[in-house]
Amino acid sequence: MKKMKITALLLVAAALNAPLAVQSQEHPNLIMTKAGVDKIRNNLGQVPLFDASVQNIKDEVDAEIALGIDTPIPKDFSGGYTHQRHKLNFLTAQKAGALYQILQDDKYAKYIRDMLFQYEAMYQDLPVHPQERSYARGKLFWQCLNDSNWLVYMAQAYDAVYDTLTAQERDKLENNLFRPFADFISIENPQFYNRVHNHSTWGNAAVGMIALVMDDKELLDRALYGIEDDGLELGGRDNDGGFIKVAGQKAGFLANLEDPFSPDGYYTEGPYYQRYAMYPFLIFGLAMKHVKPEMQVFSHKDNVLLKGVDALLNLTDADGEFFPLNDGQKGMSYYTPALVTAVDITYQYGNQNPQLLSIAEKQNQVLLDQSGLAVAMGIRDGKAQPFVKNSINLRDGQAGDQGGVGVLRYGNEDLTLVFKYAAQGLSHGHYDKLSYSLYEKGDEVLQDYGLARFVNIGQKGGGNYLKENKTWAKTTIAHNTLSINEQMHFSGKYEIASEHHSDLYFYDDTNKNVQVVSAIESNAYPDTQMHRTMAVIKSDGFEKPFLLDIMKVKSERKNQYDLPFYYMGQVLSDNFEYQSPTVLKPLGDDNGYQHLYLEGKGKPSGSNTQFSWLGNGKYYTLTSATDESDELLLTRLGANDPDFNLRRDAALMIRRKDTASTTFASVIEPHGSYSPVSELSVNSDSSIAQLTLVRDDDKYTAVSIAHVKGQESIFILSNSDAAKSTQHKLKLNGKVYRWTGPYLYTSAL
Amino acid sequence: MKKMKITALLLVAAALNAPLAVQSQEHPNLIMTKAGVDKIRNNLGQVPLFDASVQNIKDEVDAEIALGIDTPIPKDFSGGYTHQRHKLNFLTAQKAGALYQILQDDKYAKYIRDMLFQYEAMYQDLPVHPQERSYARGKLFWQCLNDSNWLVYMAQAYDAVYDTLTAQERDKLENNLFRPFADFISIENPQFYNRVHNHSTWGNAAVGMIALVMDDKELLDRALYGIEDDGLELGGRDNDGGFIKVAGQKAGFLANLEDPFSPDGYYTEGPYYQRYAMYPFLIFGLAMKHVKPEMQVFSHKDNVLLKGVDALLNLTDADGEFFPLNDGQKGMSYYTPALVTAVDITYQYGNQNPQLLSIAEKQNQVLLDQSGLAVAMGIRDGKAQPFVKNSINLRDGQAGDQGGVGVLRYGNEDLTLVFKYAAQGLSHGHYDKLSYSLYEKGDEVLQDYGLARFVNIGQKGGGNYLKENKTWAKTTIAHNTLSINEQMHFSGKYEIASEHHSDLYFYDDTNKNVQVVSAIESNAYPDTQMHRTMAVIKSDGFEKPFLLDIMKVKSERKNQYDLPFYYMGQVLSDNFEYQSPTVLKPLGDDNGYQHLYLEGKGKPSGSNTQFSWLGNGKYYTLTSATDESDELLLTRLGANDPDFNLRRDAALMIRRKDTASTTFASVIEPHGSYSPVSELSVNSDSSIAQLTLVRDDDKYTAVSIAHVKGQESIFILSNSDAAKSTQHKLKLNGKVYRWTGPYLYTSAL
Repeated sequence: MKKMKITALLLVAAALNAPLAVQSQEHPNLIMTKAGVDKIRNNLGQVPLFDASVQNIKDEVDAEIALGIDTPIPKDFSGGYTHQRHKLNFLTAQKAGALYQILQDDKYAKYIRDMLFQYEAMYQDLPVHPQERSYARGKLFWQCLNDSNWLVYMAQAYDAVYDTLTAQERDKLENNLFRPFADFISIENPQFYNRVHNHSTWGNAAVGMIALVMDDKELLDRALYGIEDDGLELGGRDNDGGFIKVAGQKAGFLANLEDPFSPDGYYTEGPYYQRYAMYPFLIFGLAMKHVKPEMQVFSHKDNVLLKGVDALLNLTDADGEFFPLNDGQKGMSYYTPALVTAVDITYQYGNQNPQLLSIAEKQNQVLLDQSGLAVAMGIRDGKAQPFVKNSINLRDGQAGDQGGVGVLRYGNEDLTLVFKYAAQGLSHGHYDKLSYSLYEKGDEVLQDYGLARFVNIGQKGGGNYLKENKTWAKTTIAHNTLSINEQMHFSGKYEIASEHHSDLYFYDDTNKNVQVVSAIESNAYPDTQMHRTMAVIKSDGFEKPFLLDIMKVKSERKNQYDLPFYYMGQVLSDNFEYQSPTVLKPLGDDNGYQHLYLEGKGKPSGSNTQFSWLGNGKYYTLTSATDESDELLLTRLGANDPDFNLRRDAALMIRRKDTASTTFASVIEPHGSYSPVSELSVNSDSSIAQLTLVRDDDKYTAVSIAHVKGQESIFILSNSDAAKSTQHKLKLNGKVYRWTGPYLYTSAL
Repeated sequence: MKKMKITALLLVAAALNAPLAVQSQEHPNLIMTKAGVDKIRNNLGQVPLFDASVQNIKDEVDAEIALGIDTPIPKDFSGGYTHQRHKLNFLTAQKAGALYQILQDDKYAKYIRDMLFQYEAMYQDLPVHPQERSYARGKLFWQCLNDSNWLVYMAQAYDAVYDTLTAQERDKLENNLFRPFADFISIENPQFYNRVHNHSTWGNAAVGMIALVMDDKELLDRALYGIEDDGLELGGRDNDGGFIKVAGQKAGFLANLEDPFSPDGYYTEGPYYQRYAMYPFLIFGLAMKHVKPEMQVFSHKDNVLLKGVDALLNLTDADGEFFPLNDGQKGMSYYTPALVTAVDITYQYGNQNPQLLSIAEKQNQVLLDQSGLAVAMGIRDGKAQPFVKNSINLRDGQAGDQGGVGVLRYGNEDLTLVFKYAAQGLSHGHYDKLSYSLYEKGDEVLQDYGLARFVNIGQKGGGNYLKENKTWAKTTIAHNTLSINEQMHFSGKYEIASEHHSDLYFYDDTNKNVQVVSAIESNAYPDTQMHRTMAVIKSDGFEKPFLLDIMKVKSERKNQYDLPFYYMGQVLSDNFEYQSPTVLKPLGDDNGYQHLYLEGKGKPSGSNTQFSWLGNGKYYTLTSATDESDELLLTRLGANDPDFNLRRDAALMIRRKDTASTTFASVIEPHGSYSPVSELSVNSDSSIAQLTLVRDDDKYTAVSIAHVKGQESIFILSNSDAAKSTQHKLKLNGKVYRWTGPYLYTSAL
């Protein structure tokens, strides 16, 4: 420790323009530190989870070493052999570096050195990758993004064995491999490197990591601040349709840290991509903290990196799976290695939150560095506490003023609403303003479809985005929100959508029995305002909490409104008549409608429509105040899907035609359970007798919910004044209601 | 213990025609015994799982006691309140009886007495149940079956509190409730009582249980031997279409024990119904063992009851879920209370197989009797061993000569084939000769659809069988077997199907790397023989075991053959061209075809068809030797299903038209894996380059499997001689093969 303290003093004394040499004189210093390694070695055999992690990784790496090193000539997309092989190489090299430091067995150092020299021999004459699909082709991989992954990991491996190499060996590696590699992904590919995007974050971190190991100030500046004159023209697009350069665009790691993160740590692309970007953010942030602490990169923007980890953990369901907002692959969860990194680093360099330890326990592995040791020691010492996820409202936008995502949770994730009123979310954004998904524990009640892609599965379009991602997954009708006249929000135009965001009307989770989030979208359709209010309510007489959904639309013109409910499960019962065609036809021609078959078409039987389903052994009922002129459409995904790229998921859609301003009011009510083992069917009926829109004008919208046993609940929303302090008075059906603040919920038993 | 031994001596001395009085002088003696209760009480607090089970059941029963007793006037089907309430009453009363004996708290005895007298007061004037659907309506429930359930459990409750009641009280209960109840389900409903059927088993056991408690010889005879003159005419049908009386029909508990069980313990209706019938079989068998051991009912037919439990446990997947042969609800498993009973009793009264203890550990509960105590003590003492499921061939039919079910397992249930070549299986049987399902661990690779019913869910047809059970689930095309000319096996005629069964050709699991089952069906279609051979093979060069499927048909006439594969998962890739209609139409008009939409129609691109899918994170490839004139149909269930009673499951179907005798040869090959967390796609390509039928005539069928890396494997089947000792010699492609026995598998690397 003494040595480290002296170094730290020197670092504090160092000025920004001082040579880096003095700081990088010892290795490892990037992620592992000499003091950290000493502590690890002193604790070996005494910290069960750490020891187990060492053993697991040792088994993995030893098996790879036994196989021998292969650095094939690149040729494949992400599903193919050469891609997988190079990926496994850098992952294994990084692990071997940690093992070398911890176990001090020379075979690991030799493995890394041999691998690096194989790459050195190959790289000099390597052309760009033969696959031509990417807007920024790499050399080892089909895109610069993956080449950057390689360098982020390899820099750590190099750091770990730096001291075992001769000066000549290091010169050779740096001159023939690392510097050309860093130049290739940066100055030779500014369209990849010089943006605000998760791709660029990886690129910046890669250049920065190797800069720190090599003590190269020029590269470090390029990592932090980007390329000054990138020669890019405005308006170019990447493979996902995202802009490459917009006016006034900043670049470099700090810009990437600044822009996509909101002050709450929400990452505008959504949790799936945040999970992906989090690794280079944290790992390079930490390297900067170790090597150049005075620059305070790690704590930049009021500790947004650590806040980002907290936001990310809160954007998971009860099973730890990320909500698939925007492009997100379902099933990705906090069990991914990037989140092991995030949890361990946040524990060690944040405030040692003992709740993080319970997630680390579930992950059942820790990093092989000082943060992993600290986590494993915390668990060993019984400090772990359950990670409690509460309701949370995460603002979007650099300054937190571009809408957001509200997550309302009742109980221990018994019911979780994910309400999206955010900005577009860059090129991975979907056109789904004011959409939502709903979970009971880890099960989807109403789903967000996620992306249309089989990540890394070569048979499906090389593992890349499928065309159905654009024709279905990104469309408005693919989401639980309002589609007007079968058009997408912003007509599906990225450049327009990117200029707008929804606005929070209010968010209030103070009363755990009535939690409300309300937001307004004014730009998705011309001359149209959509105001959606969602409340998670636990009311007497109801077995479980339910969701109240009020979607109020103002429009001067008559429109067709489609409000779908993507229920997960099998239809149980309904209270309306419908025709079932024997021949299935697509519901429309484009904007996603071409992928929906119409399995049934009906009309409400009265002023209320009820529809129940059974999903994951639990019952759910939708009750909606409908007009008799509404259409009720039962849809099934799968039309115009010749390659079977889409799941055969169902929806109930309420269609209201020839209507100007209108309001949809609905309740999604979880109830009861069914087990195929006990064969007991419990509480399979809705508790709602009637849902009525009892008032709806510019000032107030009021919904009454009549229970089957007689009591009536009223939810009143102030449409024009969201102030907490405003006092309201409203007479409904002869009864006077008085309250303070934007809403009232009252239940009369 | 002393007292018990004296009683036992007396029992042995008792002659068959001796009065029952001497044997039933002490209570409880039915399931719990006085000695058993003493032992339980002496061990309280010392056997963790037993103590936990007592506590759980105490919590349950105490909650019910706190709610108060309700015996509502019967009115509902199985999904409704009165049904559920009466069901919960008898379940709770039985548990309260056990608690009374164990805890000697009078409140439990009082609860049972009060409940019994409420029933006594109600029963005398109770009409038959108002719901009219059943062929044998009960009084408390819509069918006598459920009334019988009531009596089986209530007899145990009565036995437990027998000694707490006065003679007058007992007379009142027996004369006004129990005897009329027993008479109603037997002599007043012979069409229910006097059959060989799981319904009758419940009825017989119910009458027998109460007979033993009341010491009533007439009722006991009726239980064991049925009603001598039932007045039933031949040919009547029950609600499921099963015959009520056939010529020469026996009746009573012993007949039900004799007939549906094969000597191997396979129950002809299939595991789902065996699970249901097992409880009355075992519980009445055990009561007889306790009260009339000299009659040897429990060990009847060479211990077929205990063999039945073993068969049942072997008819589960790796998650303990029963294979859904015939009418079977998916998800039902050995976690059901009936299997707790079965496992505990089999452990105690069988040979104390320590492997049963590991299942009891998973069940995490034991019976509150001496068998449950023994199991819990065994677990406490560390005796539990893993329950190992091996390959097994279970013969069907009373004498074991009516076909059977072969289960081939590789490794630790890594691949499990369930091959059905059995008899019809009474009224719950499906028309699927030579069909199969395939599992990797607990996941279905190719499914058996199971039943079309939402058991006990009132919203779905009162929880009863849906019409889709007949129009889809029972049909031939709903199964992984051959349909000819779009007709069902035996034209879907139960009376014809019931007269036939398939025949085993041979079964050989001695070589764990090549396990084979082969059977012949000659009656399903006129003048047509189907011979199917299935082999689970683990071969060098293949990551996982695969299934080889040879279906050889002999027919004089030209037919259309449909061979479907109900794969579970999402289509990944294929090697053939197909057209995808934008409008979906049903594939046919009846026999199940009316429920299938055609999502794609193509032709083989050559002599091999390959088709891959991803299911549960694992890859699978079907490789089949096809003709260029074959049609390849991609189907999706759901047509003509207005109530959404069917799942939207998919199949690939090979259709061969205008063909007389022919052979289908295919391999189902599991390989690789995919995880949405690691996003690693491993071994997603088939290892098979080519599958060829190299010889196919009356004597031999030979299939060659060429590996992508070059080696070739050959499977040769002798079609005319299944003898183990026969020596064969065959020349193929210039090479001479010699072997002994019905098949050869050889792999040349």
